[in-house]
Amino acid sequence: MEYNLALIGFGNVGQGLAEILSKKASLLRDQFNADIRIIAICDLYKGSIADPNGLDPQALLDHINEKNDLKEFPAPYKDWDARETIENSGANVLVELSFTDLKTGEPALSHMIQALTSGINVSTTNKGPAALHFQKLLELSKTYGGEIGVEGTVMSGTPTLKLGIHMLAAAGVNRIQGILNGTTNYIIGKMESGAEYADALKDAQIKGYAEADPAGDVDGHDAAAKIVILANLVMGQSMTMEDVSCVGIRELTRDQIQSAKTKNQRWKLIGTLENINGQIQGSVKPIKLDVTHPLYGVSAATNAITYSTDLLGDITLIGPGAGRIETGYAIIGDILSFLH
Amino acid sequence: MEYNLALIGFGNVGQGLAEILSKKASLLRDQFNADIRIIAICDLYKGSIADPNGLDPQALLDHINEKNDLKEFPAPYKDWDARETIENSGANVLVELSFTDLKTGEPALSHMIQALTSGINVSTTNKGPAALHFQKLLELSKTYGGEIGVEGTVMSGTPTLKLGIHMLAAAGVNRIQGILNGTTNYIIGKMESGAEYADALKDAQIKGYAEADPAGDVDGHDAAAKIVILANLVMGQSMTMEDVSCVGIRELTRDQIQSAKTKNQRWKLIGTLENINGQIQGSVKPIKLDVTHPLYGVSAATNAITYSTDLLGDITLIGPGAGRIETGYAIIGDILSFLH
Repeated sequence: MEYNLALIGFGNVGQGLAEILSKKASLLRDQFNADIRIIAICDLYKGSIADPNGLDPQALLDHINEKNDLKEFPAPYKDWDARETIENSGANVLVELSFTDLKTGEPALSHMIQALTSGINVSTTNKGPAALHFQKLLELSKTYGGEIGVEGTVMSGTPTLKLGIHMLAAAGVNRIQGILNGTTNYIIGKMESGAEYADALKDAQIKGYAEADPAGDVDGHDAAAKIVILANLVMGQSMTMEDVSCVGIRELTRDQIQSAKTKNQRWKLIGTLENINGQIQGSVKPIKLDVTHPLYGVSAATNAITYSTDLLGDITLIGPGAGRIETGYAIIGDILSFLH
Repeated sequence: MEYNLALIGFGNVGQGLAEILSKKASLLRDQFNADIRIIAICDLYKGSIADPNGLDPQALLDHINEKNDLKEFPAPYKDWDARETIENSGANVLVELSFTDLKTGEPALSHMIQALTSGINVSTTNKGPAALHFQKLLELSKTYGGEIGVEGTVMSGTPTLKLGIHMLAAAGVNRIQGILNGTTNYIIGKMESGAEYADALKDAQIKGYAEADPAGDVDGHDAAAKIVILANLVMGQSMTMEDVSCVGIRELTRDQIQSAKTKNQRWKLIGTLENINGQIQGSVKPIKLDVTHPLYGVSAATNAITYSTDLLGDITLIGPGAGRIETGYAIIGDILSFLH
């Protein structure tokens, strides 16, 4: 099967995907019968290029490394905006990697609606549309026949959603608890080692984990978006961002963290979905975990999730929560699942 | 899709499967379009019965609880042996749950060959045929069109093989390490709490974790069989039981375990597949883990596996390693995967 990708956005994740394709394209062809090529890229800052015969992924990366944009990259079509890219490129997969907006989901949402309405498959790592409008996107997918994959919105390429949706559905998932934001887990780890919050945050920013405005991470909104996605996709809810009670880590002090440490306990920013009085309720807040808790040992930027199920008890999955290659892999996983 | 099951063996796992079907049949029908019915049971000791219209799973369990066998259970066909059951029952899924033999794989192997040669799907939790003759079974599956599922042979219903084979294949699994035997993990835990080996073993036998002859567990053969299955199914090897260097827990002393504990370390019986000088080598042996190791916190009869991958780094899955319902769920998982 041939997959011709149009990438909207060519930042870290897009470049990670290109790197995977430059190394693994023949393995994907031989082992999975998946011929995956990038045929168009549209990036607000780096420029837009398209070639129906395929853009060489290694050449794209070399060009970006040298010039920091794609404006002079040789290609028969240039300067299409996102709408034109989706309409004209001939892609059968839209890879939506533009910036995340947790209020409106735009502009990613419009790109995805346009693609799905044309029967084009969509894979995204963008939490906005997945958290805010998944039901609508799913309906378009069913109506027009394009598939939609959002594995990379939770725990990057760790197959968290596939585990919850496909492998555990018949086991009856009744509770979900997870460390879903690597940046805050990294900051808390630094504070366990003795750093003050401000220094730990600065360190996370230098390492590229936290953004200049860290609010999305440290106030818990990023984890809350993932909780909404898990609620709606794994537990069949109709949850919105407003339904999640959300407390971040700004109020957590080094003293609290150090004092817990002396009792063999660890503070973690935990997202939870649980049945309270017959209703699934979502929350994000710092919780002090005992050493016996399955999420106790999850350190640094690693993420983890525990699905509590009727038939299997607790199933815990631990893996990377971010990273260019790791998140790029989520797109590959989505595309391979389109094959079924 | 209609799945008519013939169960060879009706011990703990078969009864767990019946319990799941008695509670979840309509959910499986509505949510997965899978109409799963038991139409034949053949058990060496409990008797053999068959009814092409289906055997009520709750009635089977009630009868077993009262009479301890199925000889008087009302059914139009009785006393078929395994061969006759597979041939005459009209089943399109053989659920092979007879006893495990890690030397020959028999009699399960013959049952599975008979079924696959007739194009009948096979699901099994029996490690013998999966560890010794998987390649042959896979060839029969391809030639005659019946599917084969062996999820329950490793970590019971925890979707370990599906994760490794389907979700992580493109990520490049280069190393596997796991706590694959719950009985020995339970015994070691008791020794951490102060028990001598003999008392810990006796406790495991009373709880039903260890058998009267505990050799299969405590000498590491059970874990070694799982290592062979993982090597061949996830890493594409042609490994045999003889290829796995295998040391059990009999020589592990309470003093060693207690002394490790004072240094915040834990002994675990660890199965490993790793590349040594260009070859994938398998081993089972007690290893002392530091607190930072992803398998450090896995206690009691819980199992866990870490897949090390080229693209995602380490992915760890923790879940039940045994249990009647948990292992019965593996059969359900296999059948649902036949739908794809």
